[in-house]
Amino acid sequence: MTNGLASLSPADVRAFIRTNEHKGSTSGLAKGYLQANLLILPADWAADFLLFCQKNPVACPLIGVSEPGNPYIPELGYDIDVSRDVPEYHVFHDGEFSEAVNDLGQHWRDDLVIFALGCSFSFEDALMQAGLKVRNIEQKTNVSMYDTNIACLPAGKFSGNMVVSMRPFTPKDAIRAIQVTSRFPKAHGAPVHFGSPETIGIKDITQPNYGEAVDIYDGEVPVFWACGVTPQNVVRHSKPPFCITHSPGKMLITDLLNNAHAVL
Amino acid sequence: MTNGLASLSPADVRAFIRTNEHKGSTSGLAKGYLQANLLILPADWAADFLLFCQKNPVACPLIGVSEPGNPYIPELGYDIDVSRDVPEYHVFHDGEFSEAVNDLGQHWRDDLVIFALGCSFSFEDALMQAGLKVRNIEQKTNVSMYDTNIACLPAGKFSGNMVVSMRPFTPKDAIRAIQVTSRFPKAHGAPVHFGSPETIGIKDITQPNYGEAVDIYDGEVPVFWACGVTPQNVVRHSKPPFCITHSPGKMLITDLLNNAHAVL
Repeated sequence: MTNGLASLSPADVRAFIRTNEHKGSTSGLAKGYLQANLLILPADWAADFLLFCQKNPVACPLIGVSEPGNPYIPELGYDIDVSRDVPEYHVFHDGEFSEAVNDLGQHWRDDLVIFALGCSFSFEDALMQAGLKVRNIEQKTNVSMYDTNIACLPAGKFSGNMVVSMRPFTPKDAIRAIQVTSRFPKAHGAPVHFGSPETIGIKDITQPNYGEAVDIYDGEVPVFWACGVTPQNVVRHSKPPFCITHSPGKMLITDLLNNAHAVL
Repeated sequence: MTNGLASLSPADVRAFIRTNEHKGSTSGLAKGYLQANLLILPADWAADFLLFCQKNPVACPLIGVSEPGNPYIPELGYDIDVSRDVPEYHVFHDGEFSEAVNDLGQHWRDDLVIFALGCSFSFEDALMQAGLKVRNIEQKTNVSMYDTNIACLPAGKFSGNMVVSMRPFTPKDAIRAIQVTSRFPKAHGAPVHFGSPETIGIKDITQPNYGEAVDIYDGEVPVFWACGVTPQNVVRHSKPPFCITHSPGKMLITDLLNNAHAVL
């Protein structure tokens, strides 16, 4: 089914996801369309997170915010219902993960505000169109993601370190990947680091904190992009009383074309 | 005098160079203006080299070609006399270096064709304007240049390997440098490699084949750009009966603004 989902429209992929039968990553689904990370917060924590996004646009490129209590974000897709259209959600209480659920029926509240943030999956299409191989797509795994020692700029009650996604490339391909992804600032843009994982506080590249490990071949270097899982790390650090996120790698698929959000 | 030359007009810098009193690199002189590598060949070798440039635009970004026997290239600068306006020239016979001279008075011939190629010095300005430190400018040395194992595409009588220039950066700054230099395809554009020197056939990074070594600090990686000294390597390999080049690091300064040749 995953191969079929690649060529379906975003609305059709979301309809399938609503059946709760899609268990894997959304990487490569509805090719060409922007995917979004989610952070859902009570309204009294929302203003601080809005400011956090403004201060940390590389990790948290904001593409949509809902009205409090409204699970729809029509500017991202005419029928998007954020409470049902993501394969898996993580629920947090006081910054601690409490459970993973497939829809938000029992968790939805009238005071929740949804923040939708761009996702690096959106530029994977562009990388492949440039002739580059994206290892996590080749190996059909969720992308490797790591906690780092790169501090985000704090805002109000929110602070914490950046989470990054990693894709290995030869230096020549990494240079091309930097050029290609620079065009997509709403999908984290250019990498934040390449090479030595230790420099950004990653002790063991074979043990990602989220997602799955991919092979790094001889002559390749790991290339690190800011990742929309950053808010989940910030939530653990900042401990809002209640919070919902997408499950890492399982995104909201929007009706917006990646290329419509590219610069240049 | 070098500091003063940075703010002089290209014509004034050339006038000073004509006095044969400027002995060093032209890096940083006449800030903002395009500098050119030179290859000067007998007319019967010129068509093959023109094709070589077409096939190898990253190493040999052609910005001007003279009429046979004419040392002026007015499209590069109204008063440019290529036989006098470069601090030092290298003369080759049958591909072998024979001598370094300060002007071409005794060597000029009626059948010579000048090829002017863009130079990475042109983007060093842009790197510094982006807040990056360029080590060879900081250390007041000629940039480090190396022979590589990267084969150019052969054309007619010309073949040989690429020469690269190297500037060290932290990964974060290297990513920015890739973005900045991508805008300057007529000055070699984006790097061709970063990291492991061995991958491109450089055995000892502390021993450049041309120019001078610069310090590489802890946490930095060497970043390699195609270099306009490539034709000199090609000449050694392809052995035209007669040939003149600029001396590595000592360029022709044109009246063209770097930014006028930037894309985007």
